[in-house]
Amino acid sequence: MAEVVTLGEIMLRLMPYGHERFMQSPSFNATFGGGEANVAVCLSSLGVKSSFVTALPVNPIADSCINELRKYGVETDSIVRAGDRIGIYFLEKGANQRPSVVVYDRAGSSVSLVPPEKYDWDSVFGNVKWFHITGITPAISPNGAELSLKAIEEAKKRGLTVSCDLNFRGKLWKYGKTAPEVMSSLAGMADYLIGNEEDYQKSLGIVSDAAVEKGVLDTEKYRLITDKAMELYPDVKGAAVTLRESRSADDNGWSAVFNTKDNFIYLQNMKLEI
Amino acid sequence: MAEVVTLGEIMLRLMPYGHERFMQSPSFNATFGGGEANVAVCLSSLGVKSSFVTALPVNPIADSCINELRKYGVETDSIVRAGDRIGIYFLEKGANQRPSVVVYDRAGSSVSLVPPEKYDWDSVFGNVKWFHITGITPAISPNGAELSLKAIEEAKKRGLTVSCDLNFRGKLWKYGKTAPEVMSSLAGMADYLIGNEEDYQKSLGIVSDAAVEKGVLDTEKYRLITDKAMELYPDVKGAAVTLRESRSADDNGWSAVFNTKDNFIYLQNMKLEI
Amino acid sequence: MAEVVTLGEIMLRLMPYGHERFMQSPSFNATFGGGEANVAVCLSSLGVKSSFVTALPVNPIADSCINELRKYGVETDSIVRAGDRIGIYFLEKGANQRPSVVVYDRAGSSVSLVPPEKYDWDSVFGNVKWFHITGITPAISPNGAELSLKAIEEAKKRGLTVSCDLNFRGKLWKYGKTAPEVMSSLAGMADYLIGNEEDYQKSLGIVSDAAVEKGVLDTEKYRLITDKAMELYPDVKGAAVTLRESRSADDNGWSAVFNTKDNFIYLQNMKLEI
Amino acid sequence: MAEVVTLGEIMLRLMPYGHERFMQSPSFNATFGGGEANVAVCLSSLGVKSSFVTALPVNPIADSCINELRKYGVETDSIVRAGDRIGIYFLEKGANQRPSVVVYDRAGSSVSLVPPEKYDWDSVFGNVKWFHITGITPAISPNGAELSLKAIEEAKKRGLTVSCDLNFRGKLWKYGKTAPEVMSSLAGMADYLIGNEEDYQKSLGIVSDAAVEKGVLDTEKYRLITDKAMELYPDVKGAAVTLRESRSADDNGWSAVFNTKDNFIYLQNMKLEI
Amino acid sequence: MAEVVTLGEIMLRLMPYGHERFMQSPSFNATFGGGEANVAVCLSSLGVKSSFVTALPVNPIADSCINELRKYGVETDSIVRAGDRIGIYFLEKGANQRPSVVVYDRAGSSVSLVPPEKYDWDSVFGNVKWFHITGITPAISPNGAELSLKAIEEAKKRGLTVSCDLNFRGKLWKYGKTAPEVMSSLAGMADYLIGNEEDYQKSLGIVSDAAVEKGVLDTEKYRLITDKAMELYPDVKGAAVTLRESRSADDNGWSAVFNTKDNFIYLQNMKLEI
Amino acid sequence: MAEVVTLGEIMLRLMPYGHERFMQSPSFNATFGGGEANVAVCLSSLGVKSSFVTALPVNPIADSCINELRKYGVETDSIVRAGDRIGIYFLEKGANQRPSVVVYDRAGSSVSLVPPEKYDWDSVFGNVKWFHITGITPAISPNGAELSLKAIEEAKKRGLTVSCDLNFRGKLWKYGKTAPEVMSSLAGMADYLIGNEEDYQKSLGIVSDAAVEKGVLDTEKYRLITDKAMELYPDVKGAAVTLRESRSADDNGWSAVFNTKDNFIYLQNMKLEI
Repeated sequence: MAEVVTLGEIMLRLMPYGHERFMQSPSFNATFGGGEANVAVCLSSLGVKSSFVTALPVNPIADSCINELRKYGVETDSIVRAGDRIGIYFLEKGANQRPSVVVYDRAGSSVSLVPPEKYDWDSVFGNVKWFHITGITPAISPNGAELSLKAIEEAKKRGLTVSCDLNFRGKLWKYGKTAPEVMSSLAGMADYLIGNEEDYQKSLGIVSDAAVEKGVLDTEKYRLITDKAMELYPDVKGAAVTLRESRSADDNGWSAVFNTKDNFIYLQNMKLEI
Repeated sequence: MAEVVTLGEIMLRLMPYGHERFMQSPSFNATFGGGEANVAVCLSSLGVKSSFVTALPVNPIADSCINELRKYGVETDSIVRAGDRIGIYFLEKGANQRPSVVVYDRAGSSVSLVPPEKYDWDSVFGNVKWFHITGITPAISPNGAELSLKAIEEAKKRGLTVSCDLNFRGKLWKYGKTAPEVMSSLAGMADYLIGNEEDYQKSLGIVSDAAVEKGVLDTEKYRLITDKAMELYPDVKGAAVTLRESRSADDNGWSAVFNTKDNFIYLQNMKLEI
Repeated sequence: MAEVVTLGEIMLRLMPYGHERFMQSPSFNATFGGGEANVAVCLSSLGVKSSFVTALPVNPIADSCINELRKYGVETDSIVRAGDRIGIYFLEKGANQRPSVVVYDRAGSSVSLVPPEKYDWDSVFGNVKWFHITGITPAISPNGAELSLKAIEEAKKRGLTVSCDLNFRGKLWKYGKTAPEVMSSLAGMADYLIGNEEDYQKSLGIVSDAAVEKGVLDTEKYRLITDKAMELYPDVKGAAVTLRESRSADDNGWSAVFNTKDNFIYLQNMKLEI
Repeated sequence: MAEVVTLGEIMLRLMPYGHERFMQSPSFNATFGGGEANVAVCLSSLGVKSSFVTALPVNPIADSCINELRKYGVETDSIVRAGDRIGIYFLEKGANQRPSVVVYDRAGSSVSLVPPEKYDWDSVFGNVKWFHITGITPAISPNGAELSLKAIEEAKKRGLTVSCDLNFRGKLWKYGKTAPEVMSSLAGMADYLIGNEEDYQKSLGIVSDAAVEKGVLDTEKYRLITDKAMELYPDVKGAAVTLRESRSADDNGWSAVFNTKDNFIYLQNMKLEI
Repeated sequence: MAEVVTLGEIMLRLMPYGHERFMQSPSFNATFGGGEANVAVCLSSLGVKSSFVTALPVNPIADSCINELRKYGVETDSIVRAGDRIGIYFLEKGANQRPSVVVYDRAGSSVSLVPPEKYDWDSVFGNVKWFHITGITPAISPNGAELSLKAIEEAKKRGLTVSCDLNFRGKLWKYGKTAPEVMSSLAGMADYLIGNEEDYQKSLGIVSDAAVEKGVLDTEKYRLITDKAMELYPDVKGAAVTLRESRSADDNGWSAVFNTKDNFIYLQNMKLEI
Repeated sequence: MAEVVTLGEIMLRLMPYGHERFMQSPSFNATFGGGEANVAVCLSSLGVKSSFVTALPVNPIADSCINELRKYGVETDSIVRAGDRIGIYFLEKGANQRPSVVVYDRAGSSVSLVPPEKYDWDSVFGNVKWFHITGITPAISPNGAELSLKAIEEAKKRGLTVSCDLNFRGKLWKYGKTAPEVMSSLAGMADYLIGNEEDYQKSLGIVSDAAVEKGVLDTEKYRLITDKAMELYPDVKGAAVTLRESRSADDNGWSAVFNTKDNFIYLQNMKLEI
């Protein structure tokens, strides 16, 4: 049985090979991805039993998506099979002066439309210890926001620890609500928050005090931001800031700070062996 | 300038390589296809200037689709850039006991929703001699039916010759109307009809008289069907029946009869060099 | 929990693409396969929960093998992680006058060496109804034979139904025992036997009486063979003969007879939709 | 109708995949390329209607070349179909200590042999505003030089603005004339010149005065070079120097200076979104 | 040291993958082939030491060609490195009604232009027992015809057995001579002739007597043809007729007759295991 | 005839494409490699005739391996065809925080088990001037160590110059002996030694004196190490230290020092054009 459950949208990702532009060659690399599914796969690879929850239509492409999750050991029994389609996105990798291009074709996806009542929360969260959610699902549709809030409530009700990756996406949030309107409710119920500097600002309106900032180290700035988050949302027991240093297309450095009121940890240039 | 215009839906076709099932390998062969676009490409390859008309969204995948049409010399100036998405279908080739599988993800496509008023008919049909349409577009949505009827009217108004490939697809026609309800109007305005035996029956309700059929040759049966079609729709000047003989996955024989009241032609095992 | 358990060797299969000979191109299609694993995957695809049991080394190639089984929904919890290597076979598809070539590199594989005591039989067969085994595992090594006998004993002890695919492979059986010496013990404990005509002869020494055969139908011949098998092994409740008709490289017809003393079924040209 | 016309040789480019050497794998990436065709494709992608002029034989490989140009929206109506072959070049990308390798197989190509009289200059330049040519075509053959001079004369006669990319290639210029002998005539008729430092020196014999250079900025050096070019060729209204900074195999920085007598512009690290 | 020498043209073959048309995908399968080189490779694979003689330019593509021959164990020491280019041909496989397409780009190839004096015949034929040549080389150019005649003379002078595959290609023979004018000289010096019915007719003018043919078996017809060939060319000790039965794109049956005056052998549906 | 002979293990290398993990796609790039074979291929490419000696089983995969060596002009006549299998290794290229992964499946390979007596040393070393060996073969098995010592003795006996690349691999040396126990015997018989700093330390126990090292240049340190090696092994006439500077995944700088008692050469950032 899973120790950790993650919930969100998983999409079919179609990407030309190498640095080719869309349709230079008639081949797409086809994989499935989404922030929350990636966390489930990663935990499973590290030996933590995980389950991924979403809604997917009844068709062979969605079956293939479930197969991929199972391949990496992720439990898929709580996935709701309903709705009409799996979201798709097209990704073209940039090169030199040319930026990457993303084309979303995710409107009308099952997870954006299937209502929270269709999920069997007892079964989703039974015997599970930890629930992880992100700021992407509430951004895609009114139903996505409702689903996220319902899920976090059901998790808290059953005593799970809840982590929320703020994950602000400016291209989404088109359905009438702003990110802070929804995300502050989610953050208020979470035990742990994760985000980069922009996520804290755009999702929760938290910025470090510019006056204070002058001359302080970056890590100090992140301490201020995470302190503020924990003041604003008293139930939050810890808040992390992630830092990606993009060295080249194939080489990124990853660092992070983690502030738990009592402790402040700075992990510089992490190396994970998965 | 094009001599022939075809109008319909063009979709992104995603197909695993060889005889693989969906996602056995993370690669899709990606091409664009649709019955009406195929006719335009084929005519252009044979040296007849052609134009393809449809509606496509403003995004790089639709741009790639237009590029493919241009590659084969098809004119694309009359394509309306509007709506939200290009339709997609997934195709898995069968093998042995296993049949082929098609998964449609075409709901909400631009051509199914963009209304006929958005098309500039003067520009679409200016100086054109022939218009070709099929029974697929009227099957996808109420707007698809309206678009088809409007197009054929505008073509007739300008004195074009009109051909209609009946092309009955049972999986479509889900929006409330039956095929004969719509297709009889189209057939009534056409100069030439094309279809196989099932198309004539399912689209126009035309069957050869079973009593007569006994002991007659197949070509005689097709004469009866096409005679009936020309009786029913007096403006129709000629009607064809196409015959595919599937010898193997890679080998099909193609024959056809063409009945023009005065003449009855039987083309057996055609060999085209395109 | 699985309803059906299968046990045997699963190997890495390396195959040139298309009809190429080994190393014409520096690419191998790499998949995992084995008669017993294929049955588990097939059952899972048909909706029957299945588990596959084998021994695999502790390395990332064996991990990938387990991932592939999980992908198709097969349970892998009973797989013993021990021994030094996963067996490999190279397969080159024939063409025209050129026959297919198989190169085995399976000596020293985990399943051929890990002794039966290393398997947790309570866990392997707990709550399971059916056990399926083949004549391949007893052919690869003395330990393979012992493992097969032990497995079938443990299955019977727990009241499982046992099916055995005789699957005679002349290239194996090199370690000193003949097929009939081992296979008759297995057949004696099985509830159901499966095989083609050659399998019954080479594994169990069962042939139809030539005198009787004259002028009888093939199905009658298979009735004789399966009747004999059930006489020889009184616990066997049913015996099947499978018939492959090779129409071309990509097209095989499949038929079978199934004799259960009371009934005799002939399935001609089966079409499965998996 | 095209606003800009470019003229030159387009070749079939055959390149092993990745960093492989010729024929390590039996696969070539096959595309069509040439400096002048690339400009036409790029302009079309940026929304400027363009036409490409060359000579190509009557065969399906040349047809494919024309299809590729059409795909990107480039007009191909003025291409002369004559001569025996399309030029080919083989390209192997270098790695580490190993340099890239180019093998030309372009002798006898249509464009190097088809004489200027075969081109219909009225149709080539009708209603066009700008003509772009490079120093490659005059380098390939006596006919290439004649064609280039004739083309620029015909363009000037019709009042087009003419740009010339000097593009010196030491491997060419084998037929008896030196680059400056031919290129000074072309430069004398151009309105705008483009080149890097070496191009100005090898094609036109223009070098910056070493004495002056000491201690001056690079941009100052390029001002000197372009000033000299405009002195030498009084009809030239502007001259550009392009600067490629090779950061890695996949990452180049592009800068340029553009001197129009009245203005001197320095574009540093340009980012184009095509 | 080689026992058998073959001499002829070897070309770079560029072929789209699967049943794609030229440049549907930007990939070519690239191999090297030619009737005489194929015989050398085949003999080497069967354990007969062979050497292939041709002329190839000094460039990396020709180096790759030599590498491929060496890979299959063929000796390449007698290849003359001279001339400007290796011949190329493009091949597109047909499908259904669409025939295969071959585009030759072989004019000016090294072997068609490098004169016989450039070959070191002592080294080519030293210690060799058998020389094999075909009717292709004499068809490509006057020099090809001279080279073929010179080679066969030098071989006979040294006492080698000579076989000649007539191999008539109507698309070649464009330089002024007819096939029979040249081929009769070659046949006159050969010990063994090989060809199909059309080869004997088009290369040597040999036809079976129609009057006699009526009602005789095919093998009898081939006996007549080969008898005639041996009458006409008294030094010929044996003549073979090859028979290809094309069952499908991937399946051919091969039969042959071999007439050696004393013996007449009919090999039906040969199966070679190479 | 070869001037240089190298001896060692050559393995089948299976590697996922790009930066994929094992079995993300069902494709492996399949090549053959080994330190000593690489030297033979490299010498042949540079124009020095070379021969590679090893033991390989009698099967088509080993045949392919020999074909690859022949392709690059390496002589393969001295390879012993005996034993059961060719060693295999799986290689997954790392990315970012994720390191590369190597999985060896080389136990029981022919070269690790076939005894020195099976090699025909007269034929291996006849007319050869130079023998090159590495520290890998002695590390794989007791027989590998014996084979290496026997080979070097046979080479010295015939007056060949011997070079030894120390090439320490910590993952090997599992059979009971330590590297210095075996390698000191080999080094004692060699004329030239090659290695990096770690190789000299782990294979021969040679370290530069720390006290002396302070403040000295790296090249001075390498002089100390190679001086020591030549003191310890008086027959060694020259010792080299190789220095790889890893700039990125695709870009390495190569330098080396070569100390021959009389001369000390420092080659910085070598560029070879092979």
